[in-house]
Amino acid sequence: MSETDGTEYRPTGRTVPTRSRDRARYDRELVHAILDAEYVCHLGFVRDGAPVVLPTLYGRVGERLYLHGSTGSRPLRAAGDDPGLPVCVTVTHVDGLVLARSAFHHSINYRSVVVHGTARQVTDEAECRAALDALVDHVVPGRSADSRPASAKELAATAVIRLDLEEVSAKIRTGGPNDDPEDLALPYWSGVLPVARTYGAPEPADDLAPGIPVPEYLSAR
Amino acid sequence: MSETDGTEYRPTGRTVPTRSRDRARYDRELVHAILDAEYVCHLGFVRDGAPVVLPTLYGRVGERLYLHGSTGSRPLRAAGDDPGLPVCVTVTHVDGLVLARSAFHHSINYRSVVVHGTARQVTDEAECRAALDALVDHVVPGRSADSRPASAKELAATAVIRLDLEEVSAKIRTGGPNDDPEDLALPYWSGVLPVARTYGAPEPADDLAPGIPVPEYLSAR
Repeated sequence: MSETDGTEYRPTGRTVPTRSRDRARYDRELVHAILDAEYVCHLGFVRDGAPVVLPTLYGRVGERLYLHGSTGSRPLRAAGDDPGLPVCVTVTHVDGLVLARSAFHHSINYRSVVVHGTARQVTDEAECRAALDALVDHVVPGRSADSRPASAKELAATAVIRLDLEEVSAKIRTGGPNDDPEDLALPYWSGVLPVARTYGAPEPADDLAPGIPVPEYLSAR
Repeated sequence: MSETDGTEYRPTGRTVPTRSRDRARYDRELVHAILDAEYVCHLGFVRDGAPVVLPTLYGRVGERLYLHGSTGSRPLRAAGDDPGLPVCVTVTHVDGLVLARSAFHHSINYRSVVVHGTARQVTDEAECRAALDALVDHVVPGRSADSRPASAKELAATAVIRLDLEEVSAKIRTGGPNDDPEDLALPYWSGVLPVARTYGAPEPADDLAPGIPVPEYLSAR
């Protein structure tokens, strides 16, 4: 099977890294899994010739990422102009701190996805609504059905942009330190400190009406 | 006291947000605290007119951020050319998921810092060494003194870039959901799900020499 048989994204000049090529992956399922395990991305775009990187939420529907914001937001407005806004969306999980005997070989275990493409504003109302549901459910699966949907006024105040998953790569590092053989006998502890994101006990709003229990989709988190 | 008396970064056109201005902060101590509580940033730069966002480690020494990579890395090479590489470095902590009654008011509690500026390659060997120590100690405080320092060969293979903290802003959201008064009686749970980064038990390298205990700076994490 070729690399472009549909199970993988086709590598391009900007998705093949110059360094650590062995860490690059193009498998769609893997990319989707990394994207679905996180909900904050870093959105990069160019403004007045200079780079801007902003954290923002995202959702995924098939081979499309959706981002949203106020209609007053500068990048979202720019995505509404023809021919859209060139962006780079990056998602990163930190899985471990890798402590080698040598300072040089210290590293991080991580999973990241980088998406290059053109963001375009979504103008179809049904697609907007589906995208906003996806955004909410991406953060808390099951939540969109357990909250009040956007009103027409709220919908009008919200800009949704879409980025197709076409030019995509993942990068992964796993495992222990890669110390040089001559360093193995050095008297320094070496190994991995696992890192994870954890959730605390849900904190009800001060004005939560009595008798509303913590939903199951939160307890499971 | 004015906003430019030295305790705050001077706001500029690109560090004053168009949206949620009340969340923007310029206090140096606050910015330093947000930067020091994280070690992975998202580095944005422009390549062939398009934005690129890559996750990478960083360290801080006073009013300077240091990033590093292979001398073969494209952005790091570009930072070595005159007049340096325009970058945007963004650091984000996720502190909580904010569940409102309305889908529209769902949000995230977060602390983020955005730094705009020009990255330049560090050519002074002493500054390079200090920067690499800062990078290691930023991830695991105390670790640089408990590992083998970079050899001359390793140092030659490493590019260090510097970004001065001049054009900087932080953005913070805390607290519960901001539901509209007419939504308060809706039968949906509302509140905050706290989010934190946690560390697991240290996993020794397969080839760790016997008798080397887990260092105190790791147990404390």
